[in-house]
Amino acid sequence: MFSTAEYQARTTRAQSMMAERGIDALLLTTEPEVRYFTGFLTRFWESPARPWFLIVPATGDPVAVIPTIGAALMARSWITDIRTWRSPDYDDDGVGLLAATLRDLGASKVATPMGLETHLRMPLDDYDMLQDLLGSKVMSDGGIMPALRMVKSDAEVAAIQRACDVANRAFARVPEIARAGVPLSSVFRRFQMLCLEEGADFVTYLAGAAGQGGYDDVISPASDAPLADGDVLMLDTGLIVDGYYCDFDRNFAVGAVAQASHDAHAKLIDAVDAAMTIAKPGATAADVFHAMDRIVTGGAGGSDTGRLGHGLGMQLTEWPSLIPADQTVLAAGMVLTLEPGIDVGGGRMLVHEENIVVTDTGARFLSAPYGRRMVQV
Amino acid sequence: MFSTAEYQARTTRAQSMMAERGIDALLLTTEPEVRYFTGFLTRFWESPARPWFLIVPATGDPVAVIPTIGAALMARSWITDIRTWRSPDYDDDGVGLLAATLRDLGASKVATPMGLETHLRMPLDDYDMLQDLLGSKVMSDGGIMPALRMVKSDAEVAAIQRACDVANRAFARVPEIARAGVPLSSVFRRFQMLCLEEGADFVTYLAGAAGQGGYDDVISPASDAPLADGDVLMLDTGLIVDGYYCDFDRNFAVGAVAQASHDAHAKLIDAVDAAMTIAKPGATAADVFHAMDRIVTGGAGGSDTGRLGHGLGMQLTEWPSLIPADQTVLAAGMVLTLEPGIDVGGGRMLVHEENIVVTDTGARFLSAPYGRRMVQV
Repeated sequence: MFSTAEYQARTTRAQSMMAERGIDALLLTTEPEVRYFTGFLTRFWESPARPWFLIVPATGDPVAVIPTIGAALMARSWITDIRTWRSPDYDDDGVGLLAATLRDLGASKVATPMGLETHLRMPLDDYDMLQDLLGSKVMSDGGIMPALRMVKSDAEVAAIQRACDVANRAFARVPEIARAGVPLSSVFRRFQMLCLEEGADFVTYLAGAAGQGGYDDVISPASDAPLADGDVLMLDTGLIVDGYYCDFDRNFAVGAVAQASHDAHAKLIDAVDAAMTIAKPGATAADVFHAMDRIVTGGAGGSDTGRLGHGLGMQLTEWPSLIPADQTVLAAGMVLTLEPGIDVGGGRMLVHEENIVVTDTGARFLSAPYGRRMVQV
Repeated sequence: MFSTAEYQARTTRAQSMMAERGIDALLLTTEPEVRYFTGFLTRFWESPARPWFLIVPATGDPVAVIPTIGAALMARSWITDIRTWRSPDYDDDGVGLLAATLRDLGASKVATPMGLETHLRMPLDDYDMLQDLLGSKVMSDGGIMPALRMVKSDAEVAAIQRACDVANRAFARVPEIARAGVPLSSVFRRFQMLCLEEGADFVTYLAGAAGQGGYDDVISPASDAPLADGDVLMLDTGLIVDGYYCDFDRNFAVGAVAQASHDAHAKLIDAVDAAMTIAKPGATAADVFHAMDRIVTGGAGGSDTGRLGHGLGMQLTEWPSLIPADQTVLAAGMVLTLEPGIDVGGGRMLVHEENIVVTDTGARFLSAPYGRRMVQV
């Protein structure tokens, strides 16, 4: 949890953007949205049973409208106005209390995030009931939440750095757990154990693949197939420290890997370096995309994976996207993944990923940048 | 992934329920909903960037409308009609393709889950755009998805059993990692490592607490405070094997714990046993609640945590809820947690949890039932 001053500053920034858009209250329902203003951190969101609501009013501190089971934890935050109900309640699962609270706050123009990479974490039936009780439609936040969350504070960058440091140490120990003959599923389990041993709070995301000279898919679960000489092994982790993610991968050469794969890997590193030379305040997300795309496809404009990186923070992936259409202007404090992929033929690819933060004058790595030559296991 | 016959049978059951309700197509957007009909299993859902859609038409096989990045994995499932777009697309993130697909299928009455413990995993702006393109409002599924998913197949029960077996083995090894002087945060990390070592694919949920004779909260992150003699340590894990969760906890006595806490713990076991004697087809979720509530509160009707158990499967928590208002009639194949809590005074409590499956004649434990006397560490 950060300082109260930080949460107050976030609230004030939000309220100033709300005033510009004529919004009386911001209604937030997802884990990172609620945590952004409160510091409320729990894995309990893994249970989709109960809705949770936070209201940011036009003036004054945020108000939590939450299930009683969360009251003790929320009371440890800076939030003082905490209204609770015993959830689940089949007659009214907090909607009446939420509407009454909005009325208490004099909020008639209520907004919630509605744009890309957002969703509403409450049942649609309840959302309809809320709008009926309010007598008005909930409106879009007009991108307030993405705009706020895209730029990280020093405390947030420090948390992401701690997550990256843990993954750096775990990746350095992959030779302890991976070699020809070991099933990929075992590597997945052992790698998660290394992440925990090195300080991860949770390892909720691990993707990876292994194949001769490259792999055909980066989102499948691990099979029990053993690693083989000539495979490239890729591990891509999203681990959590203090509620913040890292998200980067490493490729390893299992024994003797084809030179073409080593060459392709070197190009991925070159692409990251090219991105680093232009990543600075004033450049756009699209600029960073093109810097990498020129190297990995010769400027084809992208691939089927759809993007060459993205924002990172309380979520594994956040705004912006590194795609040609994203004109987000980079600003100091933005944390990004650089994630170029390259086709190595035969339906196979390599994907490499680093994490960076934009600074006042450029950008710096949060992950310990990998070398052009894959580490051999 | 289960047999194609199982997915076909699920589809047929859904279609029969859709016909009763006049639904032309079921629109599904969340991970468990999509997986229920396809077997599509990936941690990639941790990234909220991209929407994913599955359509169950009135007749015929489901149709996937998904980002290109998922095409290779979906193609390994039994689904053959897979339509893709390069996501993220800021002009149209799959909504046009989704609407066109629904039109191809001749679906005018489109439904999606809208009730308790559901949400829509797509941006609200896109949902509005979809309804505009369809020229009609999406309607409620009328509870089809909960009704289908509540009753598990033998293959699903076997998967949950495997998850429970892993947790059973990990809990048996807690004395290796927990003792007075060890910080709770270390116990959390080491316990997750034990779960992985014993065969968990992922450990996405771990709650716990420790305090003299009991604890005041069961959803907070682990602190660095060391365990102390007289503490009760509780660990509650939701680990995943083959995409299915277990969800149960164990209480441990750190050194010499007050007899009152041991007595309270024994009552929790008695409550579980009472629930087991009445859990059978024909009893209701409320009946099971009252069987436990009589023992832990003397029949007060519940507590602030809101329920004494819940369904379990592809999600850590699912329908039904063990609360007085839940009149769900138990049926063979329902998997439940029994989760009684008891007040031990001073604002402290103990919570115990087991996992069971309802059978044709009663119920059997999936977790290895814990004894009345807490294990000492």
